[in-house]
Amino acid sequence: MATADPLSYDPTPCSIAGTLQLVGEKWSLLVLREVFSGVRRFDDMHRRIGAPRQVLSTRLGSLVAAGILRRHPYRDPGQRIRYEYRLTEAGLDLYPVLVALLRWGDRHLDNPDGPSVMLTHRDCGAEVGLVMRCGAGHELASAREVRPRPGPGARRLSS
Amino acid sequence: MATADPLSYDPTPCSIAGTLQLVGEKWSLLVLREVFSGVRRFDDMHRRIGAPRQVLSTRLGSLVAAGILRRHPYRDPGQRIRYEYRLTEAGLDLYPVLVALLRWGDRHLDNPDGPSVMLTHRDCGAEVGLVMRCGAGHELASAREVRPRPGPGARRLSS
Repeated sequence: MATADPLSYDPTPCSIAGTLQLVGEKWSLLVLREVFSGVRRFDDMHRRIGAPRQVLSTRLGSLVAAGILRRHPYRDPGQRIRYEYRLTEAGLDLYPVLVALLRWGDRHLDNPDGPSVMLTHRDCGAEVGLVMRCGAGHELASAREVRPRPGPGARRLSS
Repeated sequence: MATADPLSYDPTPCSIAGTLQLVGEKWSLLVLREVFSGVRRFDDMHRRIGAPRQVLSTRLGSLVAAGILRRHPYRDPGQRIRYEYRLTEAGLDLYPVLVALLRWGDRHLDNPDGPSVMLTHRDCGAEVGLVMRCGAGHELASAREVRPRPGPGARRLSS
């Protein structure tokens, strides 16, 4: 997987690090798991994730500020207006991150009862997974078949 | 993407949360980025990631304990034996997590120069991405086409 000389390039800017700045704080990806599962309300998330209320509130605010979630008003009978959290288009695009984490855990964590969640195709019911594929249509079985190369935004380090 | 009633199922055990327990601490995924890029030595990672030495050392130890990295001895001329870090097979399987983070960042972060890293297929040079596909061979364009369903390890909450 290695480039000829990764050490001769500046590791920043990096899209991985940049994405982690938005979603890499503790609890943020679990918040997204909940919203992707259809759990959108603060109290439900709080009960299910177990994050302290203040932390959960901060994380939700950060995800809204990052354009990944948006607030949507609702009002239960006799209650004041509250807000639930929905995914934006950018938020929906994060789904492969969660699928990748899930599938790795299903494969490598020791859960004797099997997965607690199966991702299925809404149309046909078959299980959904991720495939690595190149622009020429070849499927890659492993990271060993990938070669990272400097892109247009790469910066060579002076040595 | 929602199941009929996600709130009626216990959110644990969860393969996403379990995977994040192993790789979700701050810096851990950046450590893996480095190793996938071919950067294997402590001092190189330290310089490139910018994590405090003690934190980096702890993260590397956790990744080794989790079976994601392994230590491999080397000796530079005139030096004592040191250890570099290599991916295990389980570690290699984490690659889609990093690819998903990278591709999201490439798409949604504002980097006017373009990506600093391109992932290319070693054999043909074309760019590599992730595709969601179901077991029946259908490709899914969005998370909206996925329905999470309770798996064999799901636990219904008593209400």
